[in-house]
Amino acid sequence: MAATSPSVEGPAGSTVDQTAVERPRRAAYRRLPVQQRREQLIAVALELFASRPPEEVSLDDVAEAAGASRPLVYRYFAGGKQQLYEAALRSAASELTTRFTVEPTTGTPTQQLGAVLHRYFDFVGEHAAGYGALLRGGSVVETGRTSAIVDDVRRAALRRTLRHLGVREAGPRLTLLVRSWISVVEASAISWLDEGRQIPVDSLCAWLVDQFVVMAAATAVRDGQTAEVLHGWLQLETTDSPAGVLLTRLRDIGF
Amino acid sequence: MAATSPSVEGPAGSTVDQTAVERPRRAAYRRLPVQQRREQLIAVALELFASRPPEEVSLDDVAEAAGASRPLVYRYFAGGKQQLYEAALRSAASELTTRFTVEPTTGTPTQQLGAVLHRYFDFVGEHAAGYGALLRGGSVVETGRTSAIVDDVRRAALRRTLRHLGVREAGPRLTLLVRSWISVVEASAISWLDEGRQIPVDSLCAWLVDQFVVMAAATAVRDGQTAEVLHGWLQLETTDSPAGVLLTRLRDIGF
Repeated sequence: MAATSPSVEGPAGSTVDQTAVERPRRAAYRRLPVQQRREQLIAVALELFASRPPEEVSLDDVAEAAGASRPLVYRYFAGGKQQLYEAALRSAASELTTRFTVEPTTGTPTQQLGAVLHRYFDFVGEHAAGYGALLRGGSVVETGRTSAIVDDVRRAALRRTLRHLGVREAGPRLTLLVRSWISVVEASAISWLDEGRQIPVDSLCAWLVDQFVVMAAATAVRDGQTAEVLHGWLQLETTDSPAGVLLTRLRDIGF
Repeated sequence: MAATSPSVEGPAGSTVDQTAVERPRRAAYRRLPVQQRREQLIAVALELFASRPPEEVSLDDVAEAAGASRPLVYRYFAGGKQQLYEAALRSAASELTTRFTVEPTTGTPTQQLGAVLHRYFDFVGEHAAGYGALLRGGSVVETGRTSAIVDDVRRAALRRTLRHLGVREAGPRLTLLVRSWISVVEASAISWLDEGRQIPVDSLCAWLVDQFVVMAAATAVRDGQTAEVLHGWLQLETTDSPAGVLLTRLRDIGF
């Protein structure tokens, strides 16, 4: 397939010298090495899907924005818009997954969690239209394959969160807790987009960190593993860290 | 359209005497009044979609289970399986929505919330295959219309929960709290189905009630409206109600 061959694109069946690649052929058209063209088309598609719902992006829009012809886009993505959408989604999913990584920064566990959430909301803000459409569901481009890509991201988020908690083998209740919290993060992202980003991101991330702490606490009262993990976590917190401030405030309101 | 006419089904264009309706015409086929047949087909479809993923249910399966012919099913659902699926989904959605109603039983708010959750999990258990497929997304029968039906159910759940809390006009944070909690309920339902109903329903419902209480508490520390609602709610709780027991247990683990 053209898209996976390491050669350079040219008229069908021809081979093109690498050195000729950067010479413009016509105004809006530049020859690019195959892999580079593929990545360019995905990047252009991703940008369009980020700013408009998938329904409103056509293959012609992608071709035009990429300075390429429609047949050329089809040469790379024979499955048309659907295939291009899935490639863009995979690229976005992989980018999002890298943001889940907790950097070995200083800070308490809740401070680190807050930093990951900020990176996640940056992503949501950058890909607003596409991300919203994807999570709301029912889009014409949604298939078993696109759902599988989204599920992979959720699984990655689950794994990273458990690793962040220092857990190797999570029991059913700890797994349920983390999965549920991830669904809260997603629901908040959709609400945030739907309501014109009314709640400031800082405040939303702080709220989500607090939610994690209390959801873990309410799970810990029924589950030994969660209790142990939470206990270990809280020992690393300080009185002015998110968890510390939350505990003080909860006591203030009688909890 | 046949499906909305108040007449009785018969050969196309014919009129049939109501008194002849219940006389069997051939072994597996009974004439039914139009509305009754329509409801029967939806009920049969609902049962099939409840026990198998939508992909594995064909129009022939529905016809066979209903003791009807394929052309007859098409006469009622010209849009074929997709239309029948949407009708079944609407019927299930309306049934589910009625379960959200808080009965004027005695009991504290958290006891009432637990009762609603039990009714919800009964529904999830009864419609396991279809409900799981629907919430997991990416099914071939999923469209903008099916997502809209699911969203209507979520909105109904939001309204009922706010009404249960005695709230007329919910601000952004209280809305976010309730929406987020509803997503926790959904995520738990999917986990429960995916993991072979490992956690007992009673325990899962109790956990979800606890989650509501603590999520509200962590929202209350940043939002006056939520604080007021929570305060009013907790005054109605007793030491042996779910909220009362949770508070004692949280204190026991140092919260």
